[in-house]
Amino acid sequence: MPSRMRVEIGEQPDALRRTFDALLPQVGELEALGRATGQVLFIARGSSDNAAVYGQYLCSVHAGRLATLASPSLATVYGADLDLHGVLAVAVSQSGATEEIVRTLEWARRCGARTVAVTNAPGSPLAGLADIALITRAGRELAVPATKTYTTQLAAMAVLALSLRRRPTADPVGPDALGDLDPAEALAGVPDAVGAMVEVAPAAEALAGRLTGAETLVVSGRGFAYSTALELALKLKETCYVTAVGLSYADLVHGPIAIVDAATPALLVAAADGPMLPEMTGLARRAAAAGAPVYGIGGDHEFAAACRSALPGPSLPEHLAPFALVVPGQLLAEALARAKGLDPDQPRGLAKVTQTDA
Amino acid sequence: MPSRMRVEIGEQPDALRRTFDALLPQVGELEALGRATGQVLFIARGSSDNAAVYGQYLCSVHAGRLATLASPSLATVYGADLDLHGVLAVAVSQSGATEEIVRTLEWARRCGARTVAVTNAPGSPLAGLADIALITRAGRELAVPATKTYTTQLAAMAVLALSLRRRPTADPVGPDALGDLDPAEALAGVPDAVGAMVEVAPAAEALAGRLTGAETLVVSGRGFAYSTALELALKLKETCYVTAVGLSYADLVHGPIAIVDAATPALLVAAADGPMLPEMTGLARRAAAAGAPVYGIGGDHEFAAACRSALPGPSLPEHLAPFALVVPGQLLAEALARAKGLDPDQPRGLAKVTQTDA
Repeated sequence: MPSRMRVEIGEQPDALRRTFDALLPQVGELEALGRATGQVLFIARGSSDNAAVYGQYLCSVHAGRLATLASPSLATVYGADLDLHGVLAVAVSQSGATEEIVRTLEWARRCGARTVAVTNAPGSPLAGLADIALITRAGRELAVPATKTYTTQLAAMAVLALSLRRRPTADPVGPDALGDLDPAEALAGVPDAVGAMVEVAPAAEALAGRLTGAETLVVSGRGFAYSTALELALKLKETCYVTAVGLSYADLVHGPIAIVDAATPALLVAAADGPMLPEMTGLARRAAAAGAPVYGIGGDHEFAAACRSALPGPSLPEHLAPFALVVPGQLLAEALARAKGLDPDQPRGLAKVTQTDA
Repeated sequence: MPSRMRVEIGEQPDALRRTFDALLPQVGELEALGRATGQVLFIARGSSDNAAVYGQYLCSVHAGRLATLASPSLATVYGADLDLHGVLAVAVSQSGATEEIVRTLEWARRCGARTVAVTNAPGSPLAGLADIALITRAGRELAVPATKTYTTQLAAMAVLALSLRRRPTADPVGPDALGDLDPAEALAGVPDAVGAMVEVAPAAEALAGRLTGAETLVVSGRGFAYSTALELALKLKETCYVTAVGLSYADLVHGPIAIVDAATPALLVAAADGPMLPEMTGLARRAAAAGAPVYGIGGDHEFAAACRSALPGPSLPEHLAPFALVVPGQLLAEALARAKGLDPDQPRGLAKVTQTDA
C-alpha cells in the first residue's frame, strides 16, 4: 500500500484546480485591500515560510511591491512596537492554528497592517481574524510532511501577486508586467504540469536508491527556484533525517561551497529557462569538480548533462516552475524515507499542528 | 605560530573600541536621515547578512522600526521595479566591493530609498555611493573567515539602532525604550566583555577535540542570539567543512528537530538572561533526550547543566550579548579546523572579496 504522503503528492493537480477555482474570484477584494497598502510582509514557519519566499519573489518581480518576511518572535516574544500602516500582512499556515502565527497576525493588525490569511482550514483562528481569508482547497492532509497543502499555498501566492499588480500610486504597472501570470492562460496550465511531474516517481525512486548512504546533502536553487530548494531541504530533513542544507546559489558560493565534497552530494533545482539557468549549470560543474555527486531537478539539456543524473522538470515559465519543480523532490523524499526503512507519514518528533512554544 | 584567524579573534576588543569611538559621533546625521524614513531594509550576504539579522532585531525591538532583509537577486537579476521611498536601505559588506551588494544598494537608491553603507573599506564603491557611510575600524583582516569585521559590523548595527530610536511620527519612543543601549553605559562595556570571552580559548580547544569526528552539526539560538547561531553555523561550514545547519529555535522545533540524534551534535547559543533562556534550556534537554550530544555557549547555570558541556558566555544584557557570544564559537571553529588538519586562514573555495556571479 502506498504511503499517505505518496497518495497526497498525486492529489496535487486536483487540489490546485480546486484552489485556483476558489481563489481567482477573490482577486477583486484582494486588489481593493492591496490598494490601501504599499508593501507585503509575510508571516509563516516551516513549509509555509518556503511558500512565502515564493510569494516574496512573485510580489516583488511581478507585482512591483516590496515584499519581505517577518520574524514572528519580534511580535510574540519581544512585542516590538512598530508602525505597520500601509503594510499588507499575509500570514500563511496550513492549520491556521499555529499559535505564534495567529498571535503575530494579531500583532500586525494592532500595529496598523491590513491582513490576509492563507490557510487550508476555513474555520481556523487565522481565517477568522484576517480581513481576507484565502482558503486553499488541498482537502485533508493526513501525512505529516506537507505536500498538497504546500503547492496550494503557492497557488494562493500567485493569486495574491495577481491582485497586487496594480500599484496604489499614480504609476500603475500595466498588465504586461505580469507576463505569463495571466490567470486564464498560464495558471490554467499549472495543474497539468504538476500532474506530469507525478510520473517522475520511478526515476525519483531510482535516485533515492543512490542516496540512502548520504548523511548530509546540500540543496540549492536561485531566484524563483530558491523557494523550492528550501522546501526540499526541509522535506529531506523532516522525512529522511538527512542533514540537508538549503541555500541560495549566492549564499552557497559566498562561503559554504567549502562543505561540498565527495561526502556531500548536491541537489540542484533549476527552471527550464530564465536568467538563473546558466549559473545553476555552472554550479553543477563546479560542485562536480570538487568531487561531489551532483543531482539535478529540472533545468535544460545542458544542466542535466552537468549533473550525474537529473530528474526532469516542467516546461512552465520560470516564475511558475516552483509549482511543479517541487514534485520530483517530494517523490524523492518519500522514496528515500522508505528506502531507509522510515515511515514517511509519521516522522519522529513532529505533529501536524506545530506549536513553537509547546 | 597562531593562525591569523586566532590573532584577529583576539583583536576584537580593540577593534570594537575604535569602531564605537568612530561611529558614535555619527548618531546625529543618522538620526536626521532616519527621520525621513519609516523602516529599514538590510542588504547583505554571508557573515554580513548575519550581522544584518542582529540589526533587524535591534532596530525592531529597540528602535521601533520595521526592519527586514532584502533578496539581492530581486534587484540584480530581476530588476524588480519597487517604490522604496520612506525606506532606509542599509548595505553591509566588509570589503565594500562585493558587486551584487553595490548594485543592490544602487538599485535601492534608484527606487527612492535613503542609503547607508556599513563597510570596513573607506574608499570602497559601497562607501562612495551611500548617503552615509559607517566605516568599521576592524583594521586589515587577513584570515578569510570574518571575525573582527563581523563584530565591528554588530557595533555599526547598535549605533544605527541608537540613531533610529526616535520615530519620524508624532509618537516618539522615549529613551527608556532603548534600555541598556545607552551609549555611555552599556555599549562601553562591550569591548571588555568581548575581551573576557577570548580567555575561553582553552575550553574551546577542548570542545573542538570532542567534535573532530562530527560531519554534521545543528547550531541553534533564538531572538537576539539567533544571529549568533547563524554566524557560527557559517563559520563551521566555511572553516571546518562541517555540514552545520543554523536554525532558529522555532524553525528547529517546527520540523527539522527530526535530524537531531546521536550522530548529529547540537550547539546551542543563549544569552545569560531574557525571555528566550528557558526555551533554550528546554531545547537542550529535548535534544539530549533524543540522544544528541548537546553543547552550549552562554546561558545560565541551568542551561549549562542541561548540556554535556558549555562554554561560558558574557553577562551582557540579552540584546548586547551577540557581541561576545560569538567569540567562544569563533575560537571553536578555529580550533576545530586545526584539529582536523585544515588551515583556518585559507578555507578551500573562498576568497576575501566574494562575487556571487564571478
